[in-house]
Amino acid sequence: MKKKNKKVNAAILVIGNEILSGRTQDKNVAFLSNWLNFKCGIIVSEVRIIPDVEKIIINNIRNLSKQFNYVFTTGGIGPTHDDITAQSISKAFKLNYGFNKEAYKILENYYGIKNFNDGRKKMAKMPKGSKLIYNPSSAAPGFMVKNILSLPGVPSILNSMIENCKKYLIKGNSVHSKTLNLFTVESNISKELGQIQKKYKTKVEIGSYPFFRLGRVGVSVVYRSEKKKLLLKVYEDLKKLTNSKKIKLLNI
Amino acid sequence: MKKKNKKVNAAILVIGNEILSGRTQDKNVAFLSNWLNFKCGIIVSEVRIIPDVEKIIINNIRNLSKQFNYVFTTGGIGPTHDDITAQSISKAFKLNYGFNKEAYKILENYYGIKNFNDGRKKMAKMPKGSKLIYNPSSAAPGFMVKNILSLPGVPSILNSMIENCKKYLIKGNSVHSKTLNLFTVESNISKELGQIQKKYKTKVEIGSYPFFRLGRVGVSVVYRSEKKKLLLKVYEDLKKLTNSKKIKLLNI
Repeated sequence: MKKKNKKVNAAILVIGNEILSGRTQDKNVAFLSNWLNFKCGIIVSEVRIIPDVEKIIINNIRNLSKQFNYVFTTGGIGPTHDDITAQSISKAFKLNYGFNKEAYKILENYYGIKNFNDGRKKMAKMPKGSKLIYNPSSAAPGFMVKNILSLPGVPSILNSMIENCKKYLIKGNSVHSKTLNLFTVESNISKELGQIQKKYKTKVEIGSYPFFRLGRVGVSVVYRSEKKKLLLKVYEDLKKLTNSKKIKLLNI
Repeated sequence: MKKKNKKVNAAILVIGNEILSGRTQDKNVAFLSNWLNFKCGIIVSEVRIIPDVEKIIINNIRNLSKQFNYVFTTGGIGPTHDDITAQSISKAFKLNYGFNKEAYKILENYYGIKNFNDGRKKMAKMPKGSKLIYNPSSAAPGFMVKNILSLPGVPSILNSMIENCKKYLIKGNSVHSKTLNLFTVESNISKELGQIQKKYKTKVEIGSYPFFRLGRVGVSVVYRSEKKKLLLKVYEDLKKLTNSKKIKLLNI
């Protein structure tokens, strides 16, 4: 992973009719967001889920590529007719779409020359100039071209490849996060929470999320900042608030 | 639900830092997509996940509102400072943001005059001209304004409100869907699947998705169409393919 930069952000572009139709529950967004945030200090600023339609993929790649430091795509790099991510990215950047020699060799080795059919060969096709993202679980590599990193849609395979993205990424400042779980309801603390947020302006980001646990309702207050020291100060403010309102904490 | 139209589509706009940061696994997209698709014949054509930032919400509301028949937002309509969906939608359409009388009464009744504090009152504020989406589980209503339907982020509450959206929606043609689970790998059938897809052009949408079940790998072939009869024809083509390649089916 390369030298530190201040703010580094990314978008995730999920390509797949099966997610949009509700047939499949996406798991890659949460996994990628956590990994980027905690391992790389890269903030995920937007996610889009779009269908397997060339024109739509091209428009979104161009649009997101301009707006964010990195764009991670998931899905559409397999062997079948509905896998059109690589050719769409090629068109988005007006790059030739063809065999990557190294990917071709990796796949030929993996399947053996006799079983290396056209569908399997298709997985070696990508935009010209792509760098490979190795795949330790099922061989077919992902690729990086421009600021786009293309990964498969199957979560277990994506997870196995993620560490191989690191060498292509510039690390950002890590965001630290703390959570305080309170046995109260949001509307009991909304005014005070708003005041605390105002005090720290954009230096700390405070969110509140209702939960249901142990048969009781509560609120998780999540506070995030690049500066660890500020989180301690927010904690003190939150303790004052809970003491004054006699709100119990849930220790987990 | 109103009269039938041919094609009706929607976008889902998930508003929430907790989903983008990976802290919370989104469940609303799959639920909403399934409900819209199977109960309303409305196709979900795009999903976006964005942070709790006013300018970003405004831009996305304007952009998606123009492109799709309906836009469903989830999240950001609670009592705390980070709940800014209603005021952002007001700004997007240059509508006044203020108390909705009916929502105010519902909430005042629910909490009692004594406990109806500012945070709770905030949940009665929405864009002028909004129609209410009643909330049987925690009172605070969602709202519809222009072609935007705003729902909360907590899945159990959203689920309880969904039937109350129906009266505002125009029904589209239902899309029928069938799945055939084959004990094979994608690259063994990719060529033939592509040929079947070509034969039906855009009238049937065929997708293939790897699965791992009973310790074996397989492929789910999902085929969808507005015309039920075409699905039977695709099934016959798929049976020919599996017979010729001696591929076993997984009956579930």
